[in-house]
Amino acid sequence: MNLKNYIAEIQDFPIEGVLFRDITPLMNDGEAFFEATRRIQEFAETCGAEIIVGPESRGFIFGCPVAVNMKIGFVPVRKPGKLPRKTISYKYDLEYGSNELHMHADSIKKGQKVLIVDDLLATGGTVEATIKLVEEMGGEVVGCAFLIELLGLEGRKALGNYNVFTVMSYE
Amino acid sequence: MNLKNYIAEIQDFPIEGVLFRDITPLMNDGEAFFEATRRIQEFAETCGAEIIVGPESRGFIFGCPVAVNMKIGFVPVRKPGKLPRKTISYKYDLEYGSNELHMHADSIKKGQKVLIVDDLLATGGTVEATIKLVEEMGGEVVGCAFLIELLGLEGRKALGNYNVFTVMSYE
Repeated sequence: MNLKNYIAEIQDFPIEGVLFRDITPLMNDGEAFFEATRRIQEFAETCGAEIIVGPESRGFIFGCPVAVNMKIGFVPVRKPGKLPRKTISYKYDLEYGSNELHMHADSIKKGQKVLIVDDLLATGGTVEATIKLVEEMGGEVVGCAFLIELLGLEGRKALGNYNVFTVMSYE
Repeated sequence: MNLKNYIAEIQDFPIEGVLFRDITPLMNDGEAFFEATRRIQEFAETCGAEIIVGPESRGFIFGCPVAVNMKIGFVPVRKPGKLPRKTISYKYDLEYGSNELHMHADSIKKGQKVLIVDDLLATGGTVEATIKLVEEMGGEVVGCAFLIELLGLEGRKALGNYNVFTVMSYE
């Protein structure tokens, strides 16, 4: 099954000059959505993930099904003002604009094996911020999984020696 | 398994006077997250759902795992500016503030049996808006499932004769 057939390409979204990879056709197709999630789950099992962490909101789309199927927890990484209890936060620049991410301060246990899941690996800013938050709580990042990797933006380089898995990649 | 044990109560969030039910402890526990999703899936199967629709971003948390497990599609309902292709939209008032929701205009097929999934049934504004969008595309709403129902806000009344399922409810 070639999952790239389910990704739409949108020129100049959200700003001019950006070619946006739209994952909604993949999600709309039950077989394709299942298969993409299955591949990420396979990686999660190889890593020995004990909990999944995913940035809002597209990290929820693949991270939550994997967590439920493995009967492990899922921790949301959210923008300011969304999490009601005490959080830790990190601010960073991303492909277009900047971002501040929060996690509940008690969401990861010391030594817990964490898999980070998101839809897109671009420059790696979001996942780097998420790694910092997880490690601040004493979690061990055993892997980072993405549906799509944009090779030209070299996010994998930014992730150094972390174990990275992507379902598909584009030049 | 009493899933209410995994819901935290936060007074005065996001604004004064609101008692916020925080679902993140439930999501953090693999068994509880699995069990909540399993109950929604059971309802989805009873309804004969052919596709799941969920509002961002907490609708993704329960809707996506159910869709993946049933090998059916998932359609995100999103705020303005997030969906890259042609959308239809609906504006409405909610418990605090107002909201405008969008769906891709080609996301539901005529006659498709749709289950709407979200975390919370409060006044019902978000789900009513979602129903309008689904029906505008010719979809048949066979059910609406929520993790939590706030009985005092009478969202179920607003949903009239639609088939509503909630995992847990509070006075």
